[in-house]
Amino acid sequence: MVCEIVTIGDELLIGQVLNTNQAFIAEKLNSIGIDVGRMTTVGDSSASILQAFEEGMQRADIVIVTGGLGPTHDDITKKAAARFFDSELAPNPELRTRIEEIMQTRNIAWTQAAEEQTMFPKNASIVKNPIGTAAGMLFSQGEKPFIILPGVPYEMEAMMEQSVIPLLAPLVHGSVIRHHTLRSSGIPESILAQKIGPLEEILDGAALAFLPSAAGVRMRITVHAGDEPSASQKIQQVEKRLLEKVGRYVYGTGNDELEQVVGRLLADRHLTISVAESCTGGALADRITNVSGSSAYFERGVVVYSNRSKTQILGVPDELIQLHGAVSKEVAQAMASGIRSVAGTDIGVSTTGIAGPTGGSPEKPVGLVWIGYSDRSATLAIKFNFGQFRLNTKNRATQATLELVRRKLLQID
Amino acid sequence: MVCEIVTIGDELLIGQVLNTNQAFIAEKLNSIGIDVGRMTTVGDSSASILQAFEEGMQRADIVIVTGGLGPTHDDITKKAAARFFDSELAPNPELRTRIEEIMQTRNIAWTQAAEEQTMFPKNASIVKNPIGTAAGMLFSQGEKPFIILPGVPYEMEAMMEQSVIPLLAPLVHGSVIRHHTLRSSGIPESILAQKIGPLEEILDGAALAFLPSAAGVRMRITVHAGDEPSASQKIQQVEKRLLEKVGRYVYGTGNDELEQVVGRLLADRHLTISVAESCTGGALADRITNVSGSSAYFERGVVVYSNRSKTQILGVPDELIQLHGAVSKEVAQAMASGIRSVAGTDIGVSTTGIAGPTGGSPEKPVGLVWIGYSDRSATLAIKFNFGQFRLNTKNRATQATLELVRRKLLQID
Repeated sequence: MVCEIVTIGDELLIGQVLNTNQAFIAEKLNSIGIDVGRMTTVGDSSASILQAFEEGMQRADIVIVTGGLGPTHDDITKKAAARFFDSELAPNPELRTRIEEIMQTRNIAWTQAAEEQTMFPKNASIVKNPIGTAAGMLFSQGEKPFIILPGVPYEMEAMMEQSVIPLLAPLVHGSVIRHHTLRSSGIPESILAQKIGPLEEILDGAALAFLPSAAGVRMRITVHAGDEPSASQKIQQVEKRLLEKVGRYVYGTGNDELEQVVGRLLADRHLTISVAESCTGGALADRITNVSGSSAYFERGVVVYSNRSKTQILGVPDELIQLHGAVSKEVAQAMASGIRSVAGTDIGVSTTGIAGPTGGSPEKPVGLVWIGYSDRSATLAIKFNFGQFRLNTKNRATQATLELVRRKLLQID
Repeated sequence: MVCEIVTIGDELLIGQVLNTNQAFIAEKLNSIGIDVGRMTTVGDSSASILQAFEEGMQRADIVIVTGGLGPTHDDITKKAAARFFDSELAPNPELRTRIEEIMQTRNIAWTQAAEEQTMFPKNASIVKNPIGTAAGMLFSQGEKPFIILPGVPYEMEAMMEQSVIPLLAPLVHGSVIRHHTLRSSGIPESILAQKIGPLEEILDGAALAFLPSAAGVRMRITVHAGDEPSASQKIQQVEKRLLEKVGRYVYGTGNDELEQVVGRLLADRHLTISVAESCTGGALADRITNVSGSSAYFERGVVVYSNRSKTQILGVPDELIQLHGAVSKEVAQAMASGIRSVAGTDIGVSTTGIAGPTGGSPEKPVGLVWIGYSDRSATLAIKFNFGQFRLNTKNRATQATLELVRRKLLQID
């Protein structure tokens, strides 16, 4: 079963925004065994949109379109679709109720634009938008599903997950493609590959891709099989062999984030944590609190950007900072034990470093980061160098701190 | 003059990697006045590639292709191109010299793969690759330039800048395209459009697009003109008319981020800021410290997730929390003035809300956020509702807090 993805928007054709929607949709479709045959991007022009619709319908079994469903003049996808499917736009009471609700909740007055959002093609079904006012559309002419979603990524993503995938999954039968991803942290791609060794025996017909990023290296296993059970079995086999080789670096699978994994470990053990950040500037607390329910184990965080705040909130002695500098093993340790003590938590962690691009010196170059850890049995700090780029250093230091906590909790050396 | 971009690669169709090449090429072409009419992505299959080549040549004046020029089995673009242009692959001495040089420098032994890299279509010209071994190709059949580049982003980017743009720029005459983006915050797309009113008079031939995201709505002005000075003048005119209508919501232009704008305002006025976060969980401090040099005005942040930490660090009276709840106007105000006082900064801001997805009640639903602000003349708090989704609420509350600071600094009501 083959799908084509059509993304609409002048902002894409001028290179102003990255087309993340295409990749998101493709990945979701793949996960249920639907291949993407082609991706097409056209601008906000009726002729281009209609041509792309026509071609997609000719070539593919399913067409998914995003973009141009908003309330302003350049949003012409709805009209183009109505024309393409010989339909009329009519006021839709269900949509009106939904839009009124949203505008009431957000305390926004009713406008002509809202009125137009209530118009909907007569022969389409609504694909519910759990977040915004622009509804998605499903046309089912000739048994080929033709689905139109808004281009705003978080709205589109919610609709793909909650409505489109459940709708399409039952249509797929025959052979299946399954992907399974192992997520590692704290080890470079080349060393990971070396530790895994020759692939033929491990993979036995499956495929493996290494996907490096600032968060770590993902390993993606791909299996083609006759049915779901044999695909699952094959993936389990390959996963088991990989974990035997490099399991200690693997913190999760699929879309697991390290903060979720660490959060579960803390919650299961009834442990609490607090963080004292300098160079990560709040990114660590932000990651931890992205997890729903984190208030059960996250007591507090402090972003101690000034030396005064390190002393005042954490009790780091001013002399220690004068003697070793704010970016030092001693201060990282004092920050970790300080936050642990003042917050009264089981674990305290800290970051202090030179995020750059300025402020480096020969002994303390840009990218140098000390990460501190303290629990009731020990306080320690580890040195890293994360390179030249400020945001990359913040990300990598945050990830390394979470990974340090994971390894401590699991007693991995 | 219209160009089509064809990107080739299975990794794109399965959503494994983002298609950054498309956006890069489009932006470069736009900068020299070439429109992109369509972007197409196909997999590593000869039939799909040939079909995309055919369609591109029919519709466009220029075709640029990336991907599938590497040395491994799945790189088939060169063969497809030779077939499409009725050419033969033959050993190319210039290429051989170049590849030998690279392999010597990198100390890599000559391989069969290298041998195949020296083969080149007889009727194409070489587009030099200053970085890697895969040469680009230029076919000029029927006076339409047809250019093929490798898919590795940094190689492709260097070739676009050093070879392709200088080659194409002289073909464009008589017109330039210029874009200019205004970034707004704190106003929905529909209300923004309403306040701007009828567009014809404002735009006077220019185009305007609205691009909404969690951070706000961007307005992109596009102008086609005879030359650079008239394009600039036209953009300035349209910008001025838009700012007259909705200037108070516009925090920046181009790639400005709100934290950079607020940072500049604080630095220029020699003011300092500190933040007390509950529901944003560190995201606000993270945004502020993404700006290099932020240590000059950002004194500290605290993430007071527990009630105890609100009392202990900020001096928020326990009775106030008991009486009004942690998510309340009173507590937001006490947090903002508390952090301002303890940190000794000119401004203190705070967030407290129900990020969800659990923890809501009829009076205090998920998405409710109070944002507090305190300076030496006043302390206040404003109520928002950002909806059901935890990360979206964190993002939107962070943006709204920065926007509140911006408006206060500029004395916009």
